[in-house]
Amino acid sequence: MFNNIAPLDPAWFRRAAEHQAKLTMPAGALGRLLDLGQQMCAIQETLQPHGEPAAVVVMAADHGIAEEGVSAYPQHVTGQMVANFLRGGAAINVLARRQRADVVVVDMGIKDPSVLSFAPSRPGWVADAAVARGTANFLRGPAMTRAQLEQAIAAGRQVVAERIVSQGVRVVALGEMGIGNTTSASALTAALTGRPAKEVTGRGTGLDDHGWQHKVEVIERALDRHFRGAKQPVEPLDALAAVGGFEIAGLAGVALEAAAQRMIVVLDGFISSVAGLIAARIDPNGRGYFVASHRSVEAGHRAVLEALDLNPLLDLGLRLGEGSGAVLALNLIQCAADMMREMATFENAGVSRSL
Amino acid sequence: MFNNIAPLDPAWFRRAAEHQAKLTMPAGALGRLLDLGQQMCAIQETLQPHGEPAAVVVMAADHGIAEEGVSAYPQHVTGQMVANFLRGGAAINVLARRQRADVVVVDMGIKDPSVLSFAPSRPGWVADAAVARGTANFLRGPAMTRAQLEQAIAAGRQVVAERIVSQGVRVVALGEMGIGNTTSASALTAALTGRPAKEVTGRGTGLDDHGWQHKVEVIERALDRHFRGAKQPVEPLDALAAVGGFEIAGLAGVALEAAAQRMIVVLDGFISSVAGLIAARIDPNGRGYFVASHRSVEAGHRAVLEALDLNPLLDLGLRLGEGSGAVLALNLIQCAADMMREMATFENAGVSRSL
Repeated sequence: MFNNIAPLDPAWFRRAAEHQAKLTMPAGALGRLLDLGQQMCAIQETLQPHGEPAAVVVMAADHGIAEEGVSAYPQHVTGQMVANFLRGGAAINVLARRQRADVVVVDMGIKDPSVLSFAPSRPGWVADAAVARGTANFLRGPAMTRAQLEQAIAAGRQVVAERIVSQGVRVVALGEMGIGNTTSASALTAALTGRPAKEVTGRGTGLDDHGWQHKVEVIERALDRHFRGAKQPVEPLDALAAVGGFEIAGLAGVALEAAAQRMIVVLDGFISSVAGLIAARIDPNGRGYFVASHRSVEAGHRAVLEALDLNPLLDLGLRLGEGSGAVLALNLIQCAADMMREMATFENAGVSRSL
Repeated sequence: MFNNIAPLDPAWFRRAAEHQAKLTMPAGALGRLLDLGQQMCAIQETLQPHGEPAAVVVMAADHGIAEEGVSAYPQHVTGQMVANFLRGGAAINVLARRQRADVVVVDMGIKDPSVLSFAPSRPGWVADAAVARGTANFLRGPAMTRAQLEQAIAAGRQVVAERIVSQGVRVVALGEMGIGNTTSASALTAALTGRPAKEVTGRGTGLDDHGWQHKVEVIERALDRHFRGAKQPVEPLDALAAVGGFEIAGLAGVALEAAAQRMIVVLDGFISSVAGLIAARIDPNGRGYFVASHRSVEAGHRAVLEALDLNPLLDLGLRLGEGSGAVLALNLIQCAADMMREMATFENAGVSRSL
């Protein structure tokens, strides 16, 4: 089931670089857009890559750990914000319209979806993927059972197979919504990288010093309970079952299936990057298909990007989630592809080369 | 003639920030896009700013200093690349198509424009602004006369007044082409900031160590000749006349007129940022209208951005010029404006605020 991602062929990177050297600009003058162009050539196996169509998959779920007072927002905001996504008023909608990306919103386990009853057949709304009405409080036991974990990953794969592939999508951005999910992401990061909780725990949607200290303690207690403190890396599925979230597991499934289908997978901030790290631990070939869109303010993001050995494109002080940074970066990805297809060569433009 | 730029009203920044606090996201979660949104509200004097229509003005000219062997490319590449711009095959064309920005290409003083004779009436081509067929070699005397300098700045203003305002353009990106112009820009930066030549001189389109050393020496000799070494800042018009370029003077005129017309002025890399610094020295109110798009690899760019107290949006290792980085950043500017106009508020979306 899991290991079906093809490794990228280094020959495509070489061919792409050779083509770039012929384009009418000083060698290397487009910097990271050239790296991105090479990656896209290797993923799409062509020297004429495309950065569209694009879609953002926003997975939403609630977290039992929210009971512990780890978020600045009440838990029912998860469902309220999903309603906002479906009405088109959230940041992700505004950004996706600008980038002409489809928004696919998935209920992976919202605690009370009654606020969403207005939207049974909105385009892009996946209402039937919920694994359960939120995870369990992982201070008291595992966040989810192994069966729930497998169901969540499979649901993510299914969204790609049924909603994304059929639209001809070439670039998939990962987004999420879930009150409490930075606590889950920090616990996962500590478990996956072996770093101490306080190094990978941030302020989420806006905790004060006292709230942050409490959040760190909650994560430390969870790590003690599930992994005896976890000074060394835990297996990805063990970590997810113990302290994960349904939307994080679902996004790992999206990343795995999208890479298997040779799409570009654009990580957003901390939470979706943790999902990417889990996907890459499950199938190391996945990483070649990933693009890190931005560096989040959230403390743990740096550790996750280092573990993935990815350097983000943008650094704009974002900490919103929803896929917002990933969708912002779509334009750069589109530009990188356009350069490969549309720029003139020295020869056909009649421009002299360097002395 | 010069001091006709209105200062931005701080009340618009405050009103914009108040509106942003009502939008459905944690306070400050969109980072620098929020700063940009506030700036746009203040420039356009509305809470519903727009990031389009946009245009990029690419000014081209030749440099007498190219005789000294300071570039990796032969001088006739200036005209060849302008022909490439007019045929739509250069990086700036590809990027501008993606961002739906008009490209206006201006001959400010190409040495041999015969290569452009195919294009007498291309849309966006301004063939009649050339001040002279290149500047003089500034190791032997001033790059231009005071009359030529005034003509170049006026030509830049006129392009905005005649080609840009009439199109309803709200955002103007600055671009340039001119073999040898990083040498002029480095000399200007040293003169304007008082920094030593070797600190603000880079490799341009690709000099090796020996070529770089020679370029630094050329600039040092020019600074000695014109400003007795210039350890303290020189007046902007004195600096331009002595070691400037027609395209740099023209872009300063574009920046001044665009700001006077309340447009957003997007600086590209080193050379256009030097033009921005000159404009801001001529009229300090101009700076409020500027956006720094990216941090170039070129060594002197950092000094220019510091002198302008601007923090660039992107850092992608670009060193192409043409306006490429500025046009890449247009998408971020458009997104920042969209957020202000299109995002739902907590109240109208029925989303609970933080605890």
